[in-house]
Amino acid sequence: MDAPALVLINGQPASTVPVTDRGLQYGDGLFETMRLHQGRIPLWPLHLARLRAGADRLGLALNGDLLEASLRQACDTTDQGTLKLCLTRGDTGRGYGYPAGQASRLILYLYPANSVAPQPGGIRVRLCQTQLARQPTLAGLKHLNRLEQVLARAEWQPPAFQEGLVCDTDGWLIEGTFSNLFLYRDGELLTPKLDMAGVAGVLRQHLITQQPLGLPVRETRLRPDDLHSAQSCFLTNALIGLWPVAEVVLPSGPLRLPDVTMPRRIYQTLVSELGFAAN
Amino acid sequence: MDAPALVLINGQPASTVPVTDRGLQYGDGLFETMRLHQGRIPLWPLHLARLRAGADRLGLALNGDLLEASLRQACDTTDQGTLKLCLTRGDTGRGYGYPAGQASRLILYLYPANSVAPQPGGIRVRLCQTQLARQPTLAGLKHLNRLEQVLARAEWQPPAFQEGLVCDTDGWLIEGTFSNLFLYRDGELLTPKLDMAGVAGVLRQHLITQQPLGLPVRETRLRPDDLHSAQSCFLTNALIGLWPVAEVVLPSGPLRLPDVTMPRRIYQTLVSELGFAAN
Repeated sequence: MDAPALVLINGQPASTVPVTDRGLQYGDGLFETMRLHQGRIPLWPLHLARLRAGADRLGLALNGDLLEASLRQACDTTDQGTLKLCLTRGDTGRGYGYPAGQASRLILYLYPANSVAPQPGGIRVRLCQTQLARQPTLAGLKHLNRLEQVLARAEWQPPAFQEGLVCDTDGWLIEGTFSNLFLYRDGELLTPKLDMAGVAGVLRQHLITQQPLGLPVRETRLRPDDLHSAQSCFLTNALIGLWPVAEVVLPSGPLRLPDVTMPRRIYQTLVSELGFAAN
Repeated sequence: MDAPALVLINGQPASTVPVTDRGLQYGDGLFETMRLHQGRIPLWPLHLARLRAGADRLGLALNGDLLEASLRQACDTTDQGTLKLCLTRGDTGRGYGYPAGQASRLILYLYPANSVAPQPGGIRVRLCQTQLARQPTLAGLKHLNRLEQVLARAEWQPPAFQEGLVCDTDGWLIEGTFSNLFLYRDGELLTPKLDMAGVAGVLRQHLITQQPLGLPVRETRLRPDDLHSAQSCFLTNALIGLWPVAEVVLPSGPLRLPDVTMPRRIYQTLVSELGFAAN
């Protein structure tokens, strides 16, 4: 088990939480997974914006000073690693209700740096049977209710597959179990809308805003069938950067997407902008 | 805060769990809330059956000997109380994946006896704006992904309301935030199907099986509009037993359901069968 090198709970070193924590009891909270690189957190403004948006939507208190102090403390111990931030609605007794002014709990985990290598030749993925429920109230957030991802992730194992794609219960293609999905087709990038399901990743947001190589990025509804008309396909998250997809195993059979030229060119922009490892 | 009088983790007294617990990280687990009455757990076989069904569906290991020993230990300390059982997928590093043979964690909380009184005159409830996602893979289970219930529960406060009703995202009436729903109409009891959303409560299951007062119970699809044609309405769970509903505040206005005769008669069967407090 990849154990955290350091855990800060509300700014204090600790390794446990009370059994009354609502993150444990109800998944009542949010998280962020971030890359610590050369003492900095690439895309930090996007991580913070998503955390704030989630806290607003769930009515969770977020103490910005505590957050900043915790991150500074972790970054003082190393300049490379993986940071996981977890914001829960703290402790209450039994029952879904909580009082006004309920205090949150901020947990910062520092893990060793992610050892996942770039995948210049592209990875092999499968389309998962597990589907994501459509819930506009929670869509886009990186909240702690992740049973669907756990079930989808249990459908495949490396090295046969490196990731699984998931649809929502209406059959729309949404994302990978731990990554966002992009298709390259006819000079533009397509990525699923995440207004009904999915996690709006910060690297996805970065690409939408930055338009890598001048390519427009369009958020749209996509079906698994759209993979057939794509010139190439890739997956992103804040830790891996970008993985080209060379093969998708669909219920109808395997689909090869051997031309990884464009994903590799986009990855190169992330190498220079965000310090990801060169291929 | 209503603090637990005793907590056993894998059979040992404890008050905290490691920050690496997957219940905390992903809501990766199940729970049961049970009434300890005169040294016994009414409806225990139904609680156990639901827990086993959930563990099967999620692929969670459940150690029956540990479960039994933990319950015996808690029941040795008192003969009245509220028991909450929490089964998580134990500890792993970051990431949704877990190894074969992953060990679970069994947490048993013993709380003081539920102080909620019978409500012979009926309660007042509102129809919540929060809707439940439709997810057949998780429907019916009492799993730890409860953000929807937290959000719905935050829409109302006692004493204005004692419970909130929730629909799924297709507008079907499903349940209360912490209870199951029954309508009495034309000599039969109707309760929502829980194949797409909701928690299949043990007292609900008991009523379906037992047919109180010889009344057939039909699981069906119901709309909020069906409340208008109901002669009466009530809510159930393992701790409260049964609450008649005297008024539902709908978006269109309040609906009075003043005839609580039938809910009270059914409650009387629970008083004699399961030892709930007499009105």
